[in-house]
Amino acid sequence: MRLYDYLPSGNSYKVRWVAAHLGLDYTHIDVDIHKGDTQTAEFLALNPAGQIPLLALDDGKTLAESNAIICYLADGSDLVPTDSYAHAKMLQWQFWEQYRHEPAIAVARYICNYDRETRADELAQLMPKGDAALAMMDAHLKERDWFVGDRCSLADVSLYAYTHVADEGGFDLSAYSSVQAWLTRFSAQDNHIAITDKPAA
Amino acid sequence: MRLYDYLPSGNSYKVRWVAAHLGLDYTHIDVDIHKGDTQTAEFLALNPAGQIPLLALDDGKTLAESNAIICYLADGSDLVPTDSYAHAKMLQWQFWEQYRHEPAIAVARYICNYDRETRADELAQLMPKGDAALAMMDAHLKERDWFVGDRCSLADVSLYAYTHVADEGGFDLSAYSSVQAWLTRFSAQDNHIAITDKPAA
Ligand SMILES: N[C@@H](CCC(=O)N[C@@H](CS)C(=O)NCC(=O)O)C(=O)O
Ligand SMILES: N[C@@H](CCC(=O)N[C@@H](CS)C(=O)NCC(=O)O)C(=O)O
Repeated sequence: MRLYDYLPSGNSYKVRWVAAHLGLDYTHIDVDIHKGDTQTAEFLALNPAGQIPLLALDDGKTLAESNAIICYLADGSDLVPTDSYAHAKMLQWQFWEQYRHEPAIAVARYICNYDRETRADELAQLMPKGDAALAMMDAHLKERDWFVGDRCSLADVSLYAYTHVADEGGFDLSAYSSVQAWLTRFSAQDNHIAITDKPAA
Repeated sequence: MRLYDYLPSGNSYKVRWVAAHLGLDYTHIDVDIHKGDTQTAEFLALNPAGQIPLLALDDGKTLAESNAIICYLADGSDLVPTDSYAHAKMLQWQFWEQYRHEPAIAVARYICNYDRETRADELAQLMPKGDAALAMMDAHLKERDWFVGDRCSLADVSLYAYTHVADEGGFDLSAYSSVQAWLTRFSAQDNHIAITDKPAA
């Protein structure tokens, strides 16, 4: 399979992290989102949403949306709870990530890295939203090691992706001690890779 | 089980629709989102995200996020594909709904209904985003009756919720003929209920 990917992207990192954790083989294809590579006719035929990550299977089928891709790859693994309620709780956090966390924290990071001058007002509006998301995570982790159940699941993977680089968006994680302990716990796992790590060629 | 609910909410409607489709029993609890009912200490203890829909199971466990709730309720039913790839495609559309569709179309509808004067600039920015989402759906439905496979799945439920009331947000659906045909197909199903229908007492 092929992963259309951009190394600084947290959404793509989720997929690379799961593949490394599970020892899955794939071909990494670099897509430069700043040069319009996601908006070409060729790429839009693969993903009409014009975004990476995009997974292309060997039979030509495609899959978009980071959280759907990792659900597919990790199906049946230790990253996915088998209990029906725990499984739904995992999805709850993953939907919440796309609805309340990523649109604040990932977008603030993007603006800080590339668009700070032109989008300062937008950034100011995103900061309290990102802090509210971090505070909700911190409260949840006060009495727990992982988001769902007693081991790492895809909920943790989805939330780790942009939380561990939230400082690049101007967020101060020192106020969130349970989040910080969880970040350390997460990155101490076997086969952990960093956000810009490519698969071994 | 109890559903904390607000009848005009498309996110809550997804849950009510699935429960009606599957013949599930539950108690409907009205939460007035305009009176701050989602921000009370009592409600935040149920859902720290301070939003409806919120499902409370008989054993006290809770579940938030509309798309996670319907995945839980419909598990094992005809609304969820059993094939692993088709299942991931369903999730892809559900994540896309929360990322690109709902934040444009549901928010535009909310502004038109309640906040038109104070949020006119925001509304203007949401219109092209909502139209892009509708155009992507229309292109996908050109050659298909349903979003995934050859029957209605939760992907259709998630996308129906706000698409069928997109006109309330100022969107003109007449440009999207495949979407219109799909809306008709969706609402012709057995046990279909309208967005503000409560469960029979
Ligand atoms: N909801 C999507 C978001 C993907 C996304 O935001 N991708 C960004 C990079 S992180 C992208 O491709 N941007 C380029 C573009 O939109 O043209 C997911 O979870 O995969
Ligand atoms: N991502 C959530 C969104 C839920 C949502 O937006 N709920 C709105 C009503 S549609 C709400 O509770 N608003 C009141 C508030 O935010 O205080 C889901 O899919 O359930």
